[in-house]
Amino acid sequence: MSAPDLSLYLVTDTAIAEAAGHTVPGVVAAAGAGGVTTVQVRAKDAPAADFLALVGEVAAALPAHVTLMVNDRVDVFLAARDLGWQVDGVHVGQDDLPVEQVRHLIGDDALLGLSASTAEQLRAAADSPARVDYVGIGALHGTPTKPDAPEPLGVDRMLALAAESAVPAVAIGGVKVEDAEALRGSALAGVAVVSGICGAPDPAAAAEAYATAWGAA
Amino acid sequence: MSAPDLSLYLVTDTAIAEAAGHTVPGVVAAAGAGGVTTVQVRAKDAPAADFLALVGEVAAALPAHVTLMVNDRVDVFLAARDLGWQVDGVHVGQDDLPVEQVRHLIGDDALLGLSASTAEQLRAAADSPARVDYVGIGALHGTPTKPDAPEPLGVDRMLALAAESAVPAVAIGGVKVEDAEALRGSALAGVAVVSGICGAPDPAAAAEAYATAWGAA
Repeated sequence: MSAPDLSLYLVTDTAIAEAAGHTVPGVVAAAGAGGVTTVQVRAKDAPAADFLALVGEVAAALPAHVTLMVNDRVDVFLAARDLGWQVDGVHVGQDDLPVEQVRHLIGDDALLGLSASTAEQLRAAADSPARVDYVGIGALHGTPTKPDAPEPLGVDRMLALAAESAVPAVAIGGVKVEDAEALRGSALAGVAVVSGICGAPDPAAAAEAYATAWGAA
Repeated sequence: MSAPDLSLYLVTDTAIAEAAGHTVPGVVAAAGAGGVTTVQVRAKDAPAADFLALVGEVAAALPAHVTLMVNDRVDVFLAARDLGWQVDGVHVGQDDLPVEQVRHLIGDDALLGLSASTAEQLRAAADSPARVDYVGIGALHGTPTKPDAPEPLGVDRMLALAAESAVPAVAIGGVKVEDAEALRGSALAGVAVVSGICGAPDPAAAAEAYATAWGAA
């Protein structure tokens, strides 16, 4: 498994997409065309059967060069892989299964991402005997999409944490296009976006704007 | 894997146990001593790390002859098994991962239980190419513990469905001690209890009362 391109990382949110008149597979297809390089399917409250079906729809909608991550549910990832769908790995938070268990279940070839919000969590990710492929550092700003998210870090603290991280890092949490400009050229490997793309009137145009701001277009 | 003894099947409910002044591992230890033969750990809203930890505590609290099932999360079951804990299988509902996927992930040696509430679902369980080891038929009565539960069946419909099931079946959903008496000697392999044990002042005594009513004591 080669290193994923994390430069523009989309996290799906079904409620936000639907409130903007979109479907999640529709957002993913548009954002893939617009320059998104990695997609994480997230559906924390969906029953597993619905989540698995959504992962299948997203895998089918996504250009093959875009990396596809499954949030939290290792079993949904394993089932999707067993079904022959193009899924690349699992992203977990600090309250999800421990990374040692996740790595053992998914094997060495799959990608493993971890949410982290403190220097201590970043060190633990780097020092873990289980390989963590990247971390999502957040939250950059306060955000309505993840009510359980940690305290906002702001741009300066985000850049300091990214510089300390021995693991490739993306910034997440209310990232706007102007944030992508402010963060580029730093130690960050990319920016992760939820509502800025899922909730945009034109998700393809929104993805293009982020990609341009990050200098990846 | 020999056939599990389903005669008195406890499903844990953390909120009900704690409201009665208990912990889930405490309830399980007491109910195991009182005659419970199978335990399903259920924690639908818990983060996976907490659910895994709870499964470990229950496995440690449970007499070795009692069968231990994990609700919904195949990955939590797999992680628990990898950790060397004594877990026997996974119980899924109609909205969880499809039984074909679950069976593939857990292997032939693990137990697979499925919730069913209609004759059609019972036939599907029996006809599935993936082996389903037992079904939980519900709900017997309306119950506050599972707001998303299907319509109450009542005793007569429960007995008719159990008689039609080609797979061993337990009754679930507000099962009281007097229901266990009314249902024994039928096609049912056992009764499943949530609040009648988790919420009892003395879970060991409650388990004994159910076991006696079922004729298993």
